[in-house]
Amino acid sequence: MATAAEDGMVLLDFWVSPFGQRCRIALAEKGVDYEYKEENLSDKSPLLLKMNPIHKKIPVLIHHGKPICESLIIVQYIDEIWSNNPLLPSDPYERAKARFWADFVDKKVYECGTRLWKLKGEAREEDRKDMIKILKLLEGELGDKKYFGGETFGFVDVALVPFTAWFHTYEICGNFSIEKECPKLVAWAKRCMERESVSKSLHDSHKVHEFVGYLKRLFGLE
Amino acid sequence: MATAAEDGMVLLDFWVSPFGQRCRIALAEKGVDYEYKEENLSDKSPLLLKMNPIHKKIPVLIHHGKPICESLIIVQYIDEIWSNNPLLPSDPYERAKARFWADFVDKKVYECGTRLWKLKGEAREEDRKDMIKILKLLEGELGDKKYFGGETFGFVDVALVPFTAWFHTYEICGNFSIEKECPKLVAWAKRCMERESVSKSLHDSHKVHEFVGYLKRLFGLE
Repeated sequence: MATAAEDGMVLLDFWVSPFGQRCRIALAEKGVDYEYKEENLSDKSPLLLKMNPIHKKIPVLIHHGKPICESLIIVQYIDEIWSNNPLLPSDPYERAKARFWADFVDKKVYECGTRLWKLKGEAREEDRKDMIKILKLLEGELGDKKYFGGETFGFVDVALVPFTAWFHTYEICGNFSIEKECPKLVAWAKRCMERESVSKSLHDSHKVHEFVGYLKRLFGLE
Repeated sequence: MATAAEDGMVLLDFWVSPFGQRCRIALAEKGVDYEYKEENLSDKSPLLLKMNPIHKKIPVLIHHGKPICESLIIVQYIDEIWSNNPLLPSDPYERAKARFWADFVDKKVYECGTRLWKLKGEAREEDRKDMIKILKLLEGELGDKKYFGGETFGFVDVALVPFTAWFHTYEICGNFSIEKECPKLVAWAKRCMERESVSKSLHDSHKVHEFVGYLKRLFGLE
C-alpha cells in the first residue's frame, strides 16, 4: 500500500465540504495514507490557487506533484489507481448507472439543498417539495439494497453520504422530516455511518447546522 | 462490429443538440451502427419519457433495451463497450485531466453560451469577456497539440467540438471574433471537421444560428 511519504499525496480540503469528504471516504476505503491540508476559503493558499487555477476550489488531490480536481473525478482517479475495494462496478452498464446517480446528486441534492439553506425566512413550498421529490427518487433507486452499490459500498454511496450530515439542516430549513418521507434512505445513512471510512470523514449534523448559521450571518441571510 | 439489428441500439436525439452530437460522433468513431430517432422536444415521445424518467432529456442511448443517459456518461459507456479507437487515455492521470476538461465544457462553455444567446438586445460586456476567457483557457489547454487528445482525437475533442457549430452564433450575439481571439482553437475546429465522424454529425453554423433565431422568437427574446 502506498504511503504519503512514498507518493507525496496531499488533499487540499475544507472540513465541512461534502465534496472534500467524498475524497476522504474514498481514500479511507482504499487504505491510502495522505497529508490533509485544511484550506481557509476566505484566504486561499498559494498552493490551492496554483493547483486549481481554473476553478480555485477545494478539493484538490495532489499526487506525485500533479493536481486532480473535481470530487467525482478525484474519486474515479482513486478508484483507478488503487484497485482494492473497487467503488465503480466492473460492468459498463452498471458503471454508467452509478455515474448517472452520482451526477444526479451533484445536480439535484446539492443545488436544492443550497436553495433551502440560503433562504431568508421560511422555505418556499416549492423548494421543500423539490427536496422531498429528489430524496424519494434516490430512495427508489436504493430500494431494498444494502448500499447503492448493492452488497458493497460503492461510487454512489461515496457521492451521496456526505450530504446526509446536511439532512438535519435541510429538515430545519424545509420544516419536514426526512425519516418520515424516506425511511429507507435514513436507514442506509445509518448503515454507512457504521463504516469507519464514513464516520471519521463526516461531522456531527449539529456542527454542520452551526456552520450553516455562520454562513447565513456572513451572507446577511438572518 | 455490432450492428443495430444485433444490439437493438437506438439513439433518442435532437438534430441541433451538442449533447446528442457528442454521442453521434463517438458512435461514428467506433463504427457502430444504430437507429437514430429524432425527438420533438415540445411533444416528447412516450419512449423518451420511459427511458429517461428522471431528466426527461435527450440524448438517451438504448442498448439491449436499457437506457444510458447524460451525454458524457454515454460517451464513456460507448468507449468502454467498444475498445477500438479509444477516446479516453489509458493513463489514470490523463483520464482525470480529460474528464476535467470535458466537465469544464459542460459547466462553462454551454452555460456562458446560453447566457449569450438568450440576451435580449446587446450582449453584456461581462458575458462577452467571460466567453473569451473560457475559450482562451481551452486554447491554452490545447496548446500546439493536434487534438486535445494529443495525436489522437479523444474525449475532450468529442465533448467540445459540437459547440464549434455555435461559435458563429456566439460571435454574433457577443460581437467578437473567435478566430481573432483564439486562432489555434479555430484551426483545431477545422481539423476536427475533416473527420467524417464530426462533419456528418454537425450542422452548418448558419443553420444553428437560424435555429437560435427561432428559439429567441419562441421565448420572446426578440
